Amino acid sequence: MSLPGPIDPPARLLMGPGPITAHPRVLQAMSAQLVGQYDPFMTHAMGEVQELYRGVFETANAQTLLIDSTARGAIEAALVSLLEPGDRVLVPVMGRFGHLLVEIAGRCGAEVHTVEAPWGEVVPLEAIAAAMETARPKVLAMVHGDTSTTMRQPFDGLRELCDRFDCLLYADVTATLGGNPFPTDAWGVDAATAGLQKCLGGPSGSAPATFSPRAVEVIESRRSIEAGIREAGDPTAAHPIRSNYFDLAMIFDYWSPRRLNHHTEATTMLYGARECARVILEEGLGSYQERHARHGAAMAAGLAGLGLARYGDQEHRMANVVAVEIPEGVDGEAVRRQLLADFGIEIGTSFGPLAGRVWRVGIMGWNARTDAVLATLAALEAVLRRHGVRVPPGGGVDAAYAAYAADGTTA
Amino acid sequence: MSLPGPIDPPARLLMGPGPITAHPRVLQAMSAQLVGQYDPFMTHAMGEVQELYRGVFETANAQTLLIDSTARGAIEAALVSLLEPGDRVLVPVMGRFGHLLVEIAGRCGAEVHTVEAPWGEVVPLEAIAAAMETARPKVLAMVHGDTSTTMRQPFDGLRELCDRFDCLLYADVTATLGGNPFPTDAWGVDAATAGLQKCLGGPSGSAPATFSPRAVEVIESRRSIEAGIREAGDPTAAHPIRSNYFDLAMIFDYWSPRRLNHHTEATTMLYGARECARVILEEGLGSYQERHARHGAAMAAGLAGLGLARYGDQEHRMANVVAVEIPEGVDGEAVRRQLLADFGIEIGTSFGPLAGRVWRVGIMGWNARTDAVLATLAALEAVLRRHGVRVPPGGGVDAAYAAYAADGTTA
Repeated sequence: MSLPGPIDPPARLLMGPGPITAHPRVLQAMSAQLVGQYDPFMTHAMGEVQELYRGVFETANAQTLLIDSTARGAIEAALVSLLEPGDRVLVPVMGRFGHLLVEIAGRCGAEVHTVEAPWGEVVPLEAIAAAMETARPKVLAMVHGDTSTTMRQPFDGLRELCDRFDCLLYADVTATLGGNPFPTDAWGVDAATAGLQKCLGGPSGSAPATFSPRAVEVIESRRSIEAGIREAGDPTAAHPIRSNYFDLAMIFDYWSPRRLNHHTEATTMLYGARECARVILEEGLGSYQERHARHGAAMAAGLAGLGLARYGDQEHRMANVVAVEIPEGVDGEAVRRQLLADFGIEIGTSFGPLAGRVWRVGIMGWNARTDAVLATLAALEAVLRRHGVRVPPGGGVDAAYAAYAADGTTA
Repeated sequence: MSLPGPIDPPARLLMGPGPITAHPRVLQAMSAQLVGQYDPFMTHAMGEVQELYRGVFETANAQTLLIDSTARGAIEAALVSLLEPGDRVLVPVMGRFGHLLVEIAGRCGAEVHTVEAPWGEVVPLEAIAAAMETARPKVLAMVHGDTSTTMRQPFDGLRELCDRFDCLLYADVTATLGGNPFPTDAWGVDAATAGLQKCLGGPSGSAPATFSPRAVEVIESRRSIEAGIREAGDPTAAHPIRSNYFDLAMIFDYWSPRRLNHHTEATTMLYGARECARVILEEGLGSYQERHARHGAAMAAGLAGLGLARYGDQEHRMANVVAVEIPEGVDGEAVRRQLLADFGIEIGTSFGPLAGRVWRVGIMGWNARTDAVLATLAALEAVLRRHGVRVPPGGGVDAAYAAYAADGTTA
């Protein structure tokens, strides 16, 4: 074969539902040289990462760490470590990623119950409460923000509900953490897992996660130490976790002062995850979230200003992604292709019933910026016009400017 | 909290059993900006990665790709996708990582049979054949090079044996791929998984893997498509793979022209994996392997020249790592700490019965270089002397020079 040249990506502005353009500081951190797995510098950096993500998750949980996989793997780590075969789990479903929780919990051997809302809506608390009554689950597993529909599930009342049924509360915050309020401890969440490639502003491949003492207790009860490094007196579980790689008890040991060997930590991803959190906490978590809300609102206003109908319950829209309906008669994929080819700007479509019916526009991490919002709206206007859509000239950009002005911020 | 500063690793020469110092070109590639998951540039790069790793694995396997986890996760992906609960698997064990295969296969619900060799030896073919007779396994799962002992298992005769018993052959090549001959197709291996952080010269966090048509057939028979993206006519398996994240049938779909959404590919790790393979194939796989053998032999000679007894069956030593016994009365950990603190050089100890009994010195990837070998030997001599060990002055460096000279290469 003839070898391909060095990696040389084209200029892109990633305004889809994620992955998004990484913050340059994150990429720079990821070019730092490696150190050994148990180098004092490395173990210190692991401790820093734990403390940084306690800040991002707004938690005091000791077990706050990285899972060495994409966000999807971390969901599996949480569910396979919490759920024994036969355990009951309740999954409120409002989009594609609720179905993913159902799928993963099913593979863990759990008895999966669901309560569904139509796509574009969230699941009412009363519906969840009624389903809890029937299912009596060990775990209530929720998607916080389902990017497939852009809906953000309210968490009000969930802790009280879980307390009533002595149930653990798990949240998939892949698409929301950093860009939307998610105070883990204040909301009484027992386990939450994320990914770097959305609001956190990094690449996919490392998944921040946090576990409450209550979740840890359940996981610890399933602890086993693998043959080959087991020592006299080490416990072996009656019902060991069905995965070795995603065995959180082992992962806790690896991150503990005992540093019991498990995987080899993905050092470069850890450097990246560390910088993502530094970027957020340097700005301040509140300001970082507020910036997502502000630029998300400007984008939503701008898309409406282009005459595009917004999709879904706007009251429950995630801050960091807006879905709009593809106008009748327009080839949504052709528009996306031209936007990418001629303007270097990526937006997304969606899955299942929404594939080809909506576009999803993300405003996340480093890209939650005025110039990214305005450039996307101007480019989309130009492409829509070339596809025969009658768009108000300047309607997108003007509406975004107006939203920024109403907000008291200058563009 | 007060925020820690930008990541700023100390200067290190990583001469342990891995992770090792990454090739600077790999780190540079990993600072390239992201593109979207289905950007034509991205899907093209995924195709390049597949072709590059066909070169590294010496295979024509269509299903040659990356698993988004560390090497350990890729072992689990192979075993959980190949083994249904109750399936029989035979694992020859000659060190810690054989025990890991036992552990992972057990968690998959497989009936695990083992055939063990004492640590420091390999498992004789006749012993494996006898165990096959008893176990009649669906999969023979082998560690190619077990870094815990530095032994490299010969693969001669294994394909014939597997054919006789209609058995799949899986190999964990995490610690050997690139630095030791491993011609996947010529050896008739059905599934092999690796990691970047050893001879491939990159960071942990992405795992190249390859699967033969025979392995693919077994995996395909367990195919299911998840709820949320399933379409009419899509199959659902009777005995779905017990993991979603490590479901190779889904991962194959994601890497196929259909690009069916599964995880979000870890773009930065993919850039790194791509550059690792480019570095290897640019030099030439044969030359790259030969370089590991040459510098490994020089290191082995040098360590002997320091008066250290080599550990294990030298005829079956991996090219890229040498184990030596820690001299009686010497605190091995104190030596390692001083080597790291004062010379910035890392070497390893081992696990279980060998913890504190041997040092392991790696010669891998970018660090398979004369200066890395000589600097390590000179530094180790100095530290050993300060720990009261009587070492022949210059004995390590001189022996390495002599090995290079005998080899016809100038240092």
